[in-house]
Parts: sequence; C-alpha cells; structure tokens
Amino acid sequence: MSILFPLPDQDILDRRDDIIAGLGALLPPDCLVTSEDERRAFETDALTAYRYIPLAVALPRTTEEVAAVLAFCHEAGVKVVARGAGTSLSGGAIPQPDAIVLGLSKLNAILDINFPGRTVRVQAGVTNLSITEAVSAEGFFYAPDPSSQLACTIGGNIGMNSGGAHCLKYGVTTNNVLGVRVVQMDGTIIDMGGEALDSPGLDLLGLMVGSEGQLGIVTEAVVRILPMAEDARPVLFGFETSEDAGACVAAIIGAGIIPVAMEFMDKAAIEICEAFAKAGYPLDVGAMLIIEVEGSAAEMDAQLKRIVEIAHRHNVQVVRESKSAMETALIWKGRKSAFGATGRVADYICMDGTVPTGQLSYVLKRTAEICADYGLRVANVFHAGDGNMHPLIMYNVNDPADCRKAEQAGLDLLKLCVDVGGCLTGEHGVGIEKRDLMPHQFTPQDLNQQMRVRAVFDPEWLLNPAKVFPLEGRDAA
Amino acid sequence: MSILFPLPDQDILDRRDDIIAGLGALLPPDCLVTSEDERRAFETDALTAYRYIPLAVALPRTTEEVAAVLAFCHEAGVKVVARGAGTSLSGGAIPQPDAIVLGLSKLNAILDINFPGRTVRVQAGVTNLSITEAVSAEGFFYAPDPSSQLACTIGGNIGMNSGGAHCLKYGVTTNNVLGVRVVQMDGTIIDMGGEALDSPGLDLLGLMVGSEGQLGIVTEAVVRILPMAEDARPVLFGFETSEDAGACVAAIIGAGIIPVAMEFMDKAAIEICEAFAKAGYPLDVGAMLIIEVEGSAAEMDAQLKRIVEIAHRHNVQVVRESKSAMETALIWKGRKSAFGATGRVADYICMDGTVPTGQLSYVLKRTAEICADYGLRVANVFHAGDGNMHPLIMYNVNDPADCRKAEQAGLDLLKLCVDVGGCLTGEHGVGIEKRDLMPHQFTPQDLNQQMRVRAVFDPEWLLNPAKVFPLEGRDAA
Repeated sequence: MSILFPLPDQDILDRRDDIIAGLGALLPPDCLVTSEDERRAFETDALTAYRYIPLAVALPRTTEEVAAVLAFCHEAGVKVVARGAGTSLSGGAIPQPDAIVLGLSKLNAILDINFPGRTVRVQAGVTNLSITEAVSAEGFFYAPDPSSQLACTIGGNIGMNSGGAHCLKYGVTTNNVLGVRVVQMDGTIIDMGGEALDSPGLDLLGLMVGSEGQLGIVTEAVVRILPMAEDARPVLFGFETSEDAGACVAAIIGAGIIPVAMEFMDKAAIEICEAFAKAGYPLDVGAMLIIEVEGSAAEMDAQLKRIVEIAHRHNVQVVRESKSAMETALIWKGRKSAFGATGRVADYICMDGTVPTGQLSYVLKRTAEICADYGLRVANVFHAGDGNMHPLIMYNVNDPADCRKAEQAGLDLLKLCVDVGGCLTGEHGVGIEKRDLMPHQFTPQDLNQQMRVRAVFDPEWLLNPAKVFPLEGRDAA
Repeated sequence: MSILFPLPDQDILDRRDDIIAGLGALLPPDCLVTSEDERRAFETDALTAYRYIPLAVALPRTTEEVAAVLAFCHEAGVKVVARGAGTSLSGGAIPQPDAIVLGLSKLNAILDINFPGRTVRVQAGVTNLSITEAVSAEGFFYAPDPSSQLACTIGGNIGMNSGGAHCLKYGVTTNNVLGVRVVQMDGTIIDMGGEALDSPGLDLLGLMVGSEGQLGIVTEAVVRILPMAEDARPVLFGFETSEDAGACVAAIIGAGIIPVAMEFMDKAAIEICEAFAKAGYPLDVGAMLIIEVEGSAAEMDAQLKRIVEIAHRHNVQVVRESKSAMETALIWKGRKSAFGATGRVADYICMDGTVPTGQLSYVLKRTAEICADYGLRVANVFHAGDGNMHPLIMYNVNDPADCRKAEQAGLDLLKLCVDVGGCLTGEHGVGIEKRDLMPHQFTPQDLNQQMRVRAVFDPEWLLNPAKVFPLEGRDAA
C-alpha cells in the first residue's frame, strides 16, 4: 500500500539492548515482551495492510509504571505507541520498528461503581462491554457501543472518540466520559475533568478524547452510565433503492425525530450479513434501515407511527417489527457482524466519512459510481442517523493493482464526504489511513494550530508519531 | 474587593494616541469608541464590584475587521478583552486600563438556517434568545437558556460554556455548538468543527468552548437546533427543609430519571421571587423544586408518576402542577428573575460551584452554616439536577467590611464544592472571580498544562489576560 512511515531511527535500533535493559529495570519480566515471536503479535491492528514489529512491548500494571516507562522513553528519545485491544480500523495502534508498544491490557480493573452518581471509574484496559456487564444487573449501561465492544478497550475508545449504532441518541465517547487520568510523555501524571459535570479552566478532557494516543496515555477514566430504557424494538424498513432509504433518513432527522439507532444496509451488505447471521433480513429490497425505538410500549408506538408515515412517503416496501427478544438479538447480531461477515467474502477496507444527512442519497449514488469506475465491489452498512458512512470496499489483497485501486477509491470517497460538507472520520479516527488527507479537510492554518497544541503535550513528537498529521509541515508548526 | 489586577503597562498608556490612530485606520469612526464618557459604558459587566475604563473600544463589523484589529494589537502589544453583552457574572468582560475592549455587538446577523440539517449559522454577537426566535415558527429551539438569554450573546455563551435551567436534559453550550470561526491573536482566521458531527484531528472546538476569550475571538458559530417537545409542564414540589429537597433531587437523578429541568429554591429565594413575580409559589415551605417534564401527555404523566413517588419518600408537602400556559410562564418568570429580584432586596454575589448531586443536602446545610457564621443572609436558587449551586450571598456594597465578608464567604463555599468532589464553576466561568481559587481545584501540573496550551494560542498573553489563571506561576508554564 502507499502510505509512508518515516524511516526508523538507526540510533534507536542500535541502542535496542540498552533500551530493553532500561525497561527491564522498571518492569517485571512478564510485563516486558522482547522476543521476536511474541512482539509479532503486536505488529498490526485491524488495518492489516501495514505491519511493523516494534522494538519491544511494555505491559505496565499501574499508572505509576506507565509514568516510569514514559519518563524513561522520554529521556532515551524512544517513540511510544499506545495499544488497547488493537481493533483500530485506521491503523491507530500500528507500531514502528523504532518504537515500543505500550499495551494497557494489564490495567483492566473496574475501580469503583457509583450508582447514585451514575459514574464508573475504570482502568484504561477494561473492555467496553465489561462496563455494561458490571452495571446491567442494576438496570444501567454504558452507551457507546462499537461493533468491536466485546474486545475493544475504553482507553482505545477514548483515543478514537469511538461511536456505535446507539450513539445517535446517546452520543459518542466524548459525550460519555467525565474524567481521565493521563500520563504525559515526560512521566507527569495529570487529571482532566472529574466526577462532577463541567470543570473550570480549559477543557483539556475534550481535547484528550479523540487525540489518538498523541497527547498522553490515559490510564484511568470516569465514565457515565445511563438507565436502560424500559424496552426497545428494532424495526426493519426495506426500500427499492439506496437513494430512497437515504432520503428517508434525512427526512426523519429533518423532522426532529431521534430514534435510538438508525442503521443503513444496502443490498450487498444485506446479502452478506444475512448469509452469516440468518437475521431474517428482507432479501428482495435494494436497501434497508434498522430503526430502533425505545421506551414504554406507548412511547415506542407513538414514535414508530411518525417514522412509518415518513417511510411511506419514501416508497418503503417492507416494514417489519421485531416481535421477540430473540428476533431483536438476531437483527443486531446481523448488523454488528457486518465487518466480520464481509471479511469471509472478500478482503476489504472500511471507510469512515461523515456527511450531513441531507447529502446521504447523493453520496450513496456517487459511492456506487466511484467504485464501479474502479471495477470494485462495495457494500454500505453504516450509522445513517449520524450521517456516518461506512463503505466496505472489497478487493483482493494478493493483487497489488487491486490494492492500489481500493485505496484510491477509498480516498476518493473520503474526499467526496469532505466536499459535501462532511468530514474524514466519524468514529474510526485518522490513524495512518487518513493522515495524508487531512490537508483536504483543513487549511494550513487550521492544521498548524492543531499541531502546535499537540506539541505542547509532546514537544519531541514521540507519542504515536507517524499518525494523524501529515509528515510534511510538522517542523513549521 | 480583594482580587488583584496587574498594574497597567505605562508604555501602553503613553502610546494611547498612536494606538487609537492605528485602530482608526482600520475601522470607521462609528466603530471605535474613544471618549471617556462612552468608554465608561464598558468599564464593568455583571460583576460590578470591579471596574476599569478601557483604553478604547473597537466594534468591528466583520470577521476581517476583527482580524485586522487583532493583528494590529498583536503587533503593538496591546491587550484585548472580548465582550458580548457584558452579562458575565464572573467578571469575564471586565477590561483593564491598558487593554482595548473588542465588542461583538455589530456582528449580529443570523447567516443561515438549515432546517433539514437542524443547524443555524450565526455571527457571534447574536443574542441567545434570537436564535430560538428565528426558528420557533418551524417548531425548533436552541437549547441552552441562561437566565440572561434576552441579552447575552452566543459569543459570550461560547466563551463561558453557558448553561441554563433546561440544560439538564439538553446539555450546555459545548453540547450544542458544532463549529466556530475564530480569529487568533495574530490575526489568523481558523475554523474549528463544522456542520457535520465530529471532526478529525484534535478537538479544538471543545477546547475553545469555555476558554473565556483567551484563545481567540469567535466571530461565527454553527449551533444545533432541536425540535420543541409536544408539550411541557412544570410542577412545584414543596418540602419542609432544604435537606429534604436536596435528597429528593439526588434520589431522582440516582434513579436515572432526567426531567427537562429541576430547579431548586430555598425559603429565602421563594419569598424574594414570589414578591417580584407573583408566580404562585408556596410560601409555607422550607424549600421548593420546580421540575419540568415534557413530551406527550402520556409521557409526562408517566415520568411525573415516578417523580412524585420519590418525592413522597422525601416528605414532600406540596405538589402542584401547572394547569395552563399562563401559569407555566409565571412559574418560569419567577425562577428566571431570581437574580434581578434579589438585586432589588440587597446587593449580592452569586457563586457558581457544582457538586455531585449526592452531596446536595450536605452542601446546603454547610452553606447555611457558613453564611450564618459571617452574619450574612443567603438565598439558594439553582440548577439542582446538574448539582450546579447558585448561593446568592447578600451584603451591603457600601460597607467595606461587609464586602470582604461576602467575598470570603463565597470563597469558602466554592472551596466546599471542590472538597466534596465538585468544581468551582458550572456555567458562569472563572473570570477574575475564581481565578485565585484555581490552585484549590487543580494540581500545579494540571494548571501548568492548561497554561501551556493557552500559550500556544496567545504566547504574549494579550487576550483577556487578567482572568482564569493565577497571576503567579504563569512564567513557568
């Protein structure tokens, strides 16, 4: 593929033994991975087209150990790539040969559950779903729900400002995190936000969320938990065309209706997911929306009535409500397994642009045209209510020409999102994947200011350095 | 009073004629205020205990004129204090003798209304309420509703991350602003955020909201508008004691119920507001909650039923639902005029600490004790659901000893908020009022990092320089 990593620093490679010895003085042997075989497990993430074996992998157990590792690396000039569960789709956790990976997997304790205050304090390596599991018996849940929620960690969610199907109503990670403890590159430990709402001074917490491991390492977080709704019901809406489905989404949002989720699947996605999950999706339609309503039976009926009226104005062909908990589980299983199911059919890259909902129909039409021009298949399955597109571009990873075409088509689609007033990423982050497109989204002045803020936290640019910002222009910032 | 402003820079005062001439080359005469009489109108804001006549007042009409003024001041080393409507309760818009005021009042156009996308693009000097007025005929509103919403501007709201009674459900300013155009101190114009959800790279928008005029001057903003609820109904709940009312709030929030508003008034506040607004408040109770529910009649009834059950477990004595639109308007008029009504009775300072809702009862009890110890009267009227306290400490502005006591009591109350796990400000900002308390909230490392980020935007510390961060320690940052 074609995204450039900086050349490794030969001096660091030459000093590898000393660096490992230095880390070995800070961590017990089972917290430091040095053999090539074991390091290879950390060479890539969910953007598997790129892979580099890191210098070493540190697996600290406490905030203090993270601080000691960072202070040592700061002193030694060693780059550090933070890693949660390695599920990043934009390459956010891919290391470099002259960097260590700092894995948060041993920081996996739930530290405190405060039901009256509706907060939970967790270590950064706790998985997303385990927060909900810890509070569900009392009727609460943690709202952001990435499809990878069984594996992905809250630290990674904070790094990428992760979303999910139910974020239309409940917001993404930045709306559900109240505070973080951060170790800065020089080993200083600071707190941002806290258990109460708001905080005086500058909103460093908001800056930290979505900063992709470049401002510091989050070791603890306070997250908000919400009461589960009385009941919830997904409803399948089948349309003849993607354009109809997209226009229906725009009309629902434009009417001010906020269902808890509004997911889009085109014909290709429906077929792939149905073959995998047997979810009962309609196979005779051109596109489908999964719209979930929640609340009391009366509340669900009332909201659904308005949605169905709008759907009928957009030529809906099938309206099918879930009638049981099992049916509901199957419908969501089909949606949430979309990436895995697609992976069984073909290699793919998943784009993550966001567009104003009023542009959905146009962008879907252009997506089909652009992929057809490259001779590539595409499946669309995405968070339609947020305008957060996820075209899955299918290709053959063993054919270099096909790889280049897929990557180019992906870039074209992201540029399209920006050009209609949207942006490069909704929830997967910039990582390395979209790094070189940032100048398409931002003016040099905008980017420069972001890089200058970044440099306050990490002046030597040691934290996850190959990512987010184009390599050129950094010196000027 | 006792908060120190830095001594004015004599060199700037000596160069006043040149500075005014320079500004005069950039702005027409009606956009530049130079006479002492006219400048005096800008000497203070709603924290009237402090006042300084500024060097001059610039009233630019466009983003480009703002950029020209800032570039000139940057070059000339002149401090700049941004001003919306001057309603800041923390002294955020109070100038200094060696600073110019940059007023945004001429930037008062609503630029674009996008109903399908549910966004409005406005200039920074537009008033908060005028956004709702522009979209209400179509059934939409702009959610954050400070009591000063008739006068206060969206630019000031962004500077202070303003809240309001209905922010319990809909969030504060930072949750309702999607993008801003900002002029930096050197005259560079940058955009943060935009019309689509989320944005790649660092979340400078979140950093900008609540930065109190220290990172740059916002000239335009894109805000989110929401559909009005089908109906809304405030209900008065009277309790024997403030502690009962506080515990009831904690229990409602702890049960996961989010009414659209939950406002607290103690006996002193009820009497003051009832005398002013004739709102029909119960006068025979020790404390009152105004809890507003919204939605369909069935939805309101269902939520209210749960709330009433909880209130009965906390010794509620009076439950009175609004029966008409006029009654609803009166109930809210009483609440929203609390500050004005108190001002007719006595001079007062209004504190703005936020506490975890579970601490409300304890903090109310301590508030009464602390003020009694100083021999001062206090009225409590605040956003209870958010834990956002507003003790109004009454004193005699013409008695210097009383002034000192009131200020000291206020500081004690804010420290109390921090000590129970809360913070110094919920919505009024730090300004000068809470500047010297920031080390009580933050460690030196936390504060230092905030100041280093601030310095990226304004290395010479020219923007609203006396505010937010303690004067000592800045050089080290």
